[in-house]
Amino acid sequence: MKLHYAPGACSMGIHVILEEIGKPYELSSVALKDGAQHKPEFKAVNPKAKVPALDLGNGGRALTEWPAIALYLGAANPEANLLPKDPAAQARALEAIDYVTGTIHPNAFTRQFRPGNFSVREEDHPQVIAQAQENADKFFDLLEKNWTGDTWVLPEGYSVADAALFFVEFWQARRVGKPLPPKLDRHLKAMLERPAVKRVLEQEGLAA
Amino acid sequence: MKLHYAPGACSMGIHVILEEIGKPYELSSVALKDGAQHKPEFKAVNPKAKVPALDLGNGGRALTEWPAIALYLGAANPEANLLPKDPAAQARALEAIDYVTGTIHPNAFTRQFRPGNFSVREEDHPQVIAQAQENADKFFDLLEKNWTGDTWVLPEGYSVADAALFFVEFWQARRVGKPLPPKLDRHLKAMLERPAVKRVLEQEGLAA
Ligand SMILES: N[C@@H](CCC(=O)N[C@@H](CS)C(=O)NCC(=O)O)C(=O)O
Ligand SMILES: N[C@@H](CCC(=O)N[C@@H](CS)C(=O)NCC(=O)O)C(=O)O
Repeated sequence: MKLHYAPGACSMGIHVILEEIGKPYELSSVALKDGAQHKPEFKAVNPKAKVPALDLGNGGRALTEWPAIALYLGAANPEANLLPKDPAAQARALEAIDYVTGTIHPNAFTRQFRPGNFSVREEDHPQVIAQAQENADKFFDLLEKNWTGDTWVLPEGYSVADAALFFVEFWQARRVGKPLPPKLDRHLKAMLERPAVKRVLEQEGLAA
Repeated sequence: MKLHYAPGACSMGIHVILEEIGKPYELSSVALKDGAQHKPEFKAVNPKAKVPALDLGNGGRALTEWPAIALYLGAANPEANLLPKDPAAQARALEAIDYVTGTIHPNAFTRQFRPGNFSVREEDHPQVIAQAQENADKFFDLLEKNWTGDTWVLPEGYSVADAALFFVEFWQARRVGKPLPPKLDRHLKAMLERPAVKRVLEQEGLAA
């Protein structure tokens, strides 16, 4: 098993899941800033030119899309207890994950990290960034108001959904440097206490 | 069970899954064009103000996010045979779904259907739309080149993933009016032949 990732990218959440599972795996770093994702070697791994991509080590093509990788790892490693078995609880995990990967990541973060994808006019970039930051506040606020778990996202306890919420919380608090609402702030702090998360930050060269 | 949907919206794919399952359910139409998704009555159903939302009829809050609803319906109705049981095959279904809902839908279609969300300048809208249409071509092309199924998305046969691909194919071919690459075109035609899909189009007031 080999995870194609970039330090500090959304792949960080999958890296956390692999560390929680604790079985051996390899890491392969993709230098997004140098455009390594567009090189033929990486496009042979993932033609979509994105991380995360998880080579399952079975000779088949790598598995892509954050939610698919997370559910697969959760289901294939039941002893790690990272995914509820009941279909309704599993659906709640996926609901939380997809809100992060399908809404918060693109509309709040990709927009501010890559404003050029959203406006061709350089002079409009500050406005694109401001709009993205407003989106971030709105999305985090909605999560805060509708929080149904205790420390973790699901009432059932720690799961792959926490690793999804973690990477956007980390971006907001550490990369953008804006405060999180109280429950999310507590969630981020609880994540940062986990040994698996500490190992990931260290391996990716990031400060907690 | 009640599906909150809008005619012709992405909820169409969930509507197809419900028709394939064939158990009784209710439909509740949300007039997106009149902003009904932002009214308190609907935000009590889904605070994110989006369709699809599936009321499970158990007194709990509605289930949201296309991939979560699709996996739930597939897993909770095994006799309908819409979701492979093996975790690796299930991951491939979710991978295909998430590429549709997390990449193709937002970056190719939301961008051209709602250019105002992507540029505040009216005079830039044609360019936003052109860029979205280029994205659509690029994404469909990638799917075409990496097609691993026969008629259906998964080699295992028809699944919830086909209902995801269906709604973006339908948008491209019918709403935007642009041709699909050959395998996707064949897929759309095969979908349009399914009795469940025919019922959905009729119920949503759409021409095939
Ligand atoms: N839909 C993908 C999105 C992954 C994604 O956006 N990854 C970013 C890093 S956070 C990436 O690889 N960006 C490189 C690029 O866009 O060039 C998923 O859920 O895995
Ligand atoms: N992440 C959501 C997105 C759903 C979505 O974008 N729905 C659109 C219809 S295709 C919607 O409700 N739009 C209303 C609006 O944005 O005001 C999902 O996967 O279900």
